[in-house]
Amino acid sequence: MTKPELLTTFIGLDKSYEDADIVVFGSPFDGTTSFRPGTRFASQAMRVDSYGLETYSPYLDRDLEDYNICDAGDLEFPVGNTQKVLNIIEEYSNEVIKDGKKPMMIGGEHLVSLAAIKAVYQNYNDMILLHFDAHTDLREEFMGDKLSHATVIRGAWEFLGDNRIYQFGIRSGLKEEFEWAKSHTSLRKFDCQGLDKAVAEIGDRPVYITIDLDILDPSIFPGTGTPEAGGITFKELMDAIKEFTKLNIVAADLVELSPHYDHSGVSTAVACKVLRELILSMVA
Amino acid sequence: MTKPELLTTFIGLDKSYEDADIVVFGSPFDGTTSFRPGTRFASQAMRVDSYGLETYSPYLDRDLEDYNICDAGDLEFPVGNTQKVLNIIEEYSNEVIKDGKKPMMIGGEHLVSLAAIKAVYQNYNDMILLHFDAHTDLREEFMGDKLSHATVIRGAWEFLGDNRIYQFGIRSGLKEEFEWAKSHTSLRKFDCQGLDKAVAEIGDRPVYITIDLDILDPSIFPGTGTPEAGGITFKELMDAIKEFTKLNIVAADLVELSPHYDHSGVSTAVACKVLRELILSMVA
Amino acid sequence: MTKPELLTTFIGLDKSYEDADIVVFGSPFDGTTSFRPGTRFASQAMRVDSYGLETYSPYLDRDLEDYNICDAGDLEFPVGNTQKVLNIIEEYSNEVIKDGKKPMMIGGEHLVSLAAIKAVYQNYNDMILLHFDAHTDLREEFMGDKLSHATVIRGAWEFLGDNRIYQFGIRSGLKEEFEWAKSHTSLRKFDCQGLDKAVAEIGDRPVYITIDLDILDPSIFPGTGTPEAGGITFKELMDAIKEFTKLNIVAADLVELSPHYDHSGVSTAVACKVLRELILSMVA
Amino acid sequence: MTKPELLTTFIGLDKSYEDADIVVFGSPFDGTTSFRPGTRFASQAMRVDSYGLETYSPYLDRDLEDYNICDAGDLEFPVGNTQKVLNIIEEYSNEVIKDGKKPMMIGGEHLVSLAAIKAVYQNYNDMILLHFDAHTDLREEFMGDKLSHATVIRGAWEFLGDNRIYQFGIRSGLKEEFEWAKSHTSLRKFDCQGLDKAVAEIGDRPVYITIDLDILDPSIFPGTGTPEAGGITFKELMDAIKEFTKLNIVAADLVELSPHYDHSGVSTAVACKVLRELILSMVA
Amino acid sequence: MTKPELLTTFIGLDKSYEDADIVVFGSPFDGTTSFRPGTRFASQAMRVDSYGLETYSPYLDRDLEDYNICDAGDLEFPVGNTQKVLNIIEEYSNEVIKDGKKPMMIGGEHLVSLAAIKAVYQNYNDMILLHFDAHTDLREEFMGDKLSHATVIRGAWEFLGDNRIYQFGIRSGLKEEFEWAKSHTSLRKFDCQGLDKAVAEIGDRPVYITIDLDILDPSIFPGTGTPEAGGITFKELMDAIKEFTKLNIVAADLVELSPHYDHSGVSTAVACKVLRELILSMVA
Amino acid sequence: MTKPELLTTFIGLDKSYEDADIVVFGSPFDGTTSFRPGTRFASQAMRVDSYGLETYSPYLDRDLEDYNICDAGDLEFPVGNTQKVLNIIEEYSNEVIKDGKKPMMIGGEHLVSLAAIKAVYQNYNDMILLHFDAHTDLREEFMGDKLSHATVIRGAWEFLGDNRIYQFGIRSGLKEEFEWAKSHTSLRKFDCQGLDKAVAEIGDRPVYITIDLDILDPSIFPGTGTPEAGGITFKELMDAIKEFTKLNIVAADLVELSPHYDHSGVSTAVACKVLRELILSMVA
Repeated sequence: MTKPELLTTFIGLDKSYEDADIVVFGSPFDGTTSFRPGTRFASQAMRVDSYGLETYSPYLDRDLEDYNICDAGDLEFPVGNTQKVLNIIEEYSNEVIKDGKKPMMIGGEHLVSLAAIKAVYQNYNDMILLHFDAHTDLREEFMGDKLSHATVIRGAWEFLGDNRIYQFGIRSGLKEEFEWAKSHTSLRKFDCQGLDKAVAEIGDRPVYITIDLDILDPSIFPGTGTPEAGGITFKELMDAIKEFTKLNIVAADLVELSPHYDHSGVSTAVACKVLRELILSMVA
Repeated sequence: MTKPELLTTFIGLDKSYEDADIVVFGSPFDGTTSFRPGTRFASQAMRVDSYGLETYSPYLDRDLEDYNICDAGDLEFPVGNTQKVLNIIEEYSNEVIKDGKKPMMIGGEHLVSLAAIKAVYQNYNDMILLHFDAHTDLREEFMGDKLSHATVIRGAWEFLGDNRIYQFGIRSGLKEEFEWAKSHTSLRKFDCQGLDKAVAEIGDRPVYITIDLDILDPSIFPGTGTPEAGGITFKELMDAIKEFTKLNIVAADLVELSPHYDHSGVSTAVACKVLRELILSMVA
Repeated sequence: MTKPELLTTFIGLDKSYEDADIVVFGSPFDGTTSFRPGTRFASQAMRVDSYGLETYSPYLDRDLEDYNICDAGDLEFPVGNTQKVLNIIEEYSNEVIKDGKKPMMIGGEHLVSLAAIKAVYQNYNDMILLHFDAHTDLREEFMGDKLSHATVIRGAWEFLGDNRIYQFGIRSGLKEEFEWAKSHTSLRKFDCQGLDKAVAEIGDRPVYITIDLDILDPSIFPGTGTPEAGGITFKELMDAIKEFTKLNIVAADLVELSPHYDHSGVSTAVACKVLRELILSMVA
Repeated sequence: MTKPELLTTFIGLDKSYEDADIVVFGSPFDGTTSFRPGTRFASQAMRVDSYGLETYSPYLDRDLEDYNICDAGDLEFPVGNTQKVLNIIEEYSNEVIKDGKKPMMIGGEHLVSLAAIKAVYQNYNDMILLHFDAHTDLREEFMGDKLSHATVIRGAWEFLGDNRIYQFGIRSGLKEEFEWAKSHTSLRKFDCQGLDKAVAEIGDRPVYITIDLDILDPSIFPGTGTPEAGGITFKELMDAIKEFTKLNIVAADLVELSPHYDHSGVSTAVACKVLRELILSMVA
Repeated sequence: MTKPELLTTFIGLDKSYEDADIVVFGSPFDGTTSFRPGTRFASQAMRVDSYGLETYSPYLDRDLEDYNICDAGDLEFPVGNTQKVLNIIEEYSNEVIKDGKKPMMIGGEHLVSLAAIKAVYQNYNDMILLHFDAHTDLREEFMGDKLSHATVIRGAWEFLGDNRIYQFGIRSGLKEEFEWAKSHTSLRKFDCQGLDKAVAEIGDRPVYITIDLDILDPSIFPGTGTPEAGGITFKELMDAIKEFTKLNIVAADLVELSPHYDHSGVSTAVACKVLRELILSMVA
Repeated sequence: MTKPELLTTFIGLDKSYEDADIVVFGSPFDGTTSFRPGTRFASQAMRVDSYGLETYSPYLDRDLEDYNICDAGDLEFPVGNTQKVLNIIEEYSNEVIKDGKKPMMIGGEHLVSLAAIKAVYQNYNDMILLHFDAHTDLREEFMGDKLSHATVIRGAWEFLGDNRIYQFGIRSGLKEEFEWAKSHTSLRKFDCQGLDKAVAEIGDRPVYITIDLDILDPSIFPGTGTPEAGGITFKELMDAIKEFTKLNIVAADLVELSPHYDHSGVSTAVACKVLRELILSMVA
């Protein structure tokens, strides 16, 4: 007899935490968003709409069903307290790593990455940060606060230091940020040229990949807080992800889907497919 | 430590099937919809958006947390085969009843009710059908088929017979349907007047309640296949549900939410609240 | 063999112009709209969505299929020339009346009514104007022009004179307009109270009915240029239309649906149903 | 010669701060919103769409142009720091009162009211709080925090004490909140019955009025964070506002419009009209 | 005198069936759609919005007005019976071909193509199938049924056999489908490279072209059931269509526009333009 | 103390008219639009959403804050009188030029350009017109009128004459328009190839640049009246704008954003960024 079932995980990922090599989880926080909020709804929307997605990738010729991946669900956060939220993410990311697994976090706004990067850094202090984004995110503070989506990479730099951060696709920021980057990060404007060279440089050092989905052109990804025309195409992002397969990725995140701003559902579908590919680029 | 969690059931209903007195499940089928489809997405949308709803009802002064209710998830159906879909629903509804529980089905289009009513009838052959709807649903066939959302109550009449069906809120149909109803059902046009009298007549006979949410005015419930102006208000529906508490309800359903047609989310929020109240009207 | 068919008229109205007693036509003009345009799309949207509507009215117990009604399509207008547009409407309305038929015009913005009223006045100079609207529409001029949606009833008064215009549902306007109305029209604020008395007064004089659909509350009719909270319910409008059956209606119009502002489709569905009822109130 | 102009204030209010008796200002904060954010966009959306609104009220027969009202614009807030935001609101509200004017604040989420009420209380310590809302807002804390939209009235009670708070329209909350209210506030469920009696009791004591627009039924006000079916109609709210004219209102606010959730624009239009009426109920 | 007109056909195509060389017709069926339905509304939406499109193509330097093309309208289907629907399409397509004309079908979901291809095969048994799509559509069965949008090309293969099917743009499917294709069809992943070579191979054999519009990137075509990022651009599709002019096309279809999922209207506008170009590539 | 502020100008441009070298102003007119209206809302929507945009351009490495630019607001127009509207624009543009400043106009529909071009021509009669658009706009008249969005470039040709107009990106029009262009303008179909050569030819002659934003592909710019698939990418437009820096631009405009047709806000964000770049290409 057919019995009802609860469809609850991303694309039907059904491994237990114990059996998993990669742990997907959501951090539904958008408390420092300055323009349009709503990234808190991203992980849940992706779970629901992943129903329309295949598990097999014709890009990488790999299938999610062949690997041990768990969707652990969403962290629950207190309201209105940014520091507590970051602590929760850091603590949980740390545990996942200690358990010998790779965290794969779904944002939320970009600030959530700071906590996960910190957890990775504590375990791999020679780590490299690969940053894909429309925005520099290099401000020292933003509207009076050091903890914000606009300061996240600068915040990571504070413990990583120079020569550890590669930025791609950047097309918006203060003039000062672009200037500052010249001596502290490797920043590529507009597109991902030079990624292959960076990958070669990095070799087998442990890598954290953070993808702010607004690196994509808003034509294909309108559902985000601050749409910035002039982004990369989906195919350019797939090409980048193919490069990832050469790296030793220890953790990753995907942030800034704000699903309610795209009624067509395309942005959520795009985020789902990028997540599939990103996971498949991380499997051993 | 805070750990992630999968939020998966309607309003957090967390009893097991075994412990449950009422079993909520979804029948995501819209294969005979003639105008705007999409009711297949109703149950999943309600689970996600029920996050915004309290478990306590100030209307009935009852709280979902005080009762044993399980959300079993959604039935999975074959595509393009209406009869098989109905068989699956009937079989599962039957099992729930045999297990001493009350089925509470979320549609899908109205045709799904036919299978559940049939299952109830097999177990309670003196059952009464209370039907709340904008449409008569009394056609013998519709566009060449006897199994359709427009024939569902006529289909139930075929085994229930005369004097067993009460219809309320009806404001659309063929002239012939309204004529036919005069000698076969108790049909109230436009509103729910006379429900108290019907409730008194019914006494403690087993009752199946089917609510096509398009009985509500489209001002409060635009997210449905065929919006019909002139419906009842939400308060009128709450008043009806208060009457339900006097009845011996053995099963119920809630159908015809098509969530993608209402981007404001109000229709889904309304459906969630009606479901909460309907469940609370069924508890012993 | 099943052959394809073009579905082209409102609710399948299929009488020829020659056989028709009532001639439905569209005047897709919104050139003087001051806030949100788009009423040019009303008549075509109503034709397409009337697919979801029955021909039988349970309100009036009449069926469109029992009467001779033709949908003649839409007038085509030059761009940017208000006076020419009005001339085209007046000329065509005049012809319909001369041919012994009743014009039933779908707007467009409210200014289109002025031309049709003028045509009726030329044929029935003892005519009465019944005006249902949220707005007074009594300005002498608006943003430098006498021909505007905000001046239409004042424009009709210029040839009709005092004691010929009844206004209902009015809830927005300049203070001066409300003052002016006191000595020139019969103006009822907010609702339709007193309509029965007006109907009795009018007796069998020829009546033109103009319904600006924004008389309805925006909860049920958001798809309009200037939504004004506090309107009448759909049921109140149906009650008014029942009164119309006692009148000698010689022409009517339905204006100010702007369908693109209501993605749920409810506003268009409402307009379709009001049109059905309005036509059925005009049949002999 | 016609020159361009910047349209910038609500409904064209053009008095200077110095000349004003009532000072309208926006507090675009939604940092503790638990479900759907976006109230940060309310005040700006209302300024833009107020273009479609008349200054004259046929409800109160008063015209905004006859009074001294200033729209001072929006406060600017730091991100991610709730307490600082509240301090800014309190400080500015206090200044407005000290300058002998009445603050009229546009939210933002409901928490912003707490700061303005506190400022009023410091100046009028015998003040009465009139609270219109769908939600109790009486929690002691919410998701680990005392400063939240769900605790705002409880927070006000902490300094106001018993017998100073009247609540109307309440239809959602924890059972415990409804219980607590019985001995601490005057809480009317579902509608505004008893407002006239409350107004009589209050007499000429200074009154702060806080209107959470979700008191309105979501049929007319879908554009809000947590739509709750079963609300009052716009006409019921107008009736309440007519009662306000008998009170000595010293300050007021209007909160919880989230304009991006209503693409029809109706919610913003409703908020604009309520603001017009609320202001007109406060003029001497 | 200007008289009203019914605008009813695609882009004003006004030839009679008898005079036509190409017969456009709609098959508004979406009964086996597994994710988001609504393609039933495609043909009617295209007729309405084709108003904004020119008849002249600057791509092909041809004008629709110079050829004999008829828009016959939509086939009407029974509800809930997939096989009957396919029979109706096959029978009508067959008649069009027997009458010496070329069928140009607008879907509906992709399954409708199966019936039309079958009709063409019966008349041209050396036919070649050119398939443009995001999806393989090569499953043997899908959710328990052999007749489904996911099996349509496999279904065509069953009578066409090997070496008769060219697939382009494919970027989603089961691993098994991609494997199967290797020995049975010519499948090009992601784009249309090799089309020129295929065209040369095909020579003057009769060709059926089926375009599932989801081959386009969802940036330009969000209005479809299962949006798949990574598709071809509109320009790539135009380049493909230019190649078509070298072929002996005997029939074609355009499927999977689901207009309600794109409120901007762009998807429908795109479909209209592709249809214009596709027709112009088929004229002798 | 933090005080409220009115945010009113595009991207915070705060120079006075007197101090400005470039004067931004809006012409919110859409009276001759033949398909979807709404460009009247463009300038105001751009002001509101420019909040999300940086003042610094990484494309041109220039910052708006380093130049003297004023946003003067919107011109106010009479309703329903196209000629008067054009007169107002011409007169104001003329004044701006006489005052030694450069007009930078935001439309409105494309017809508004005609008046501004005329004003520029009166001051610089050797001017060159650079026209970026999807449409030829070369009709002699359109639906009975010479003043229309479809005739605007033809209208400019009437006083400019041959060899003065360069058109790029054109992909829609009557066959006759393309023919006519061959001997009167320099027309490039589909893209902007040849712009560098044109720029070299033009040298330091005074140039007016008119950008109809529908030159962009509707994937990135759906919010326009007549979306035409096959347009240029945002990056191609940025490349064009970089060429502009070599020119002697004396005035420019940006037209045809219809913001209500794009609920994602992307079209408005795109228009804002193009405006930033266009202004920065005009600074000395």
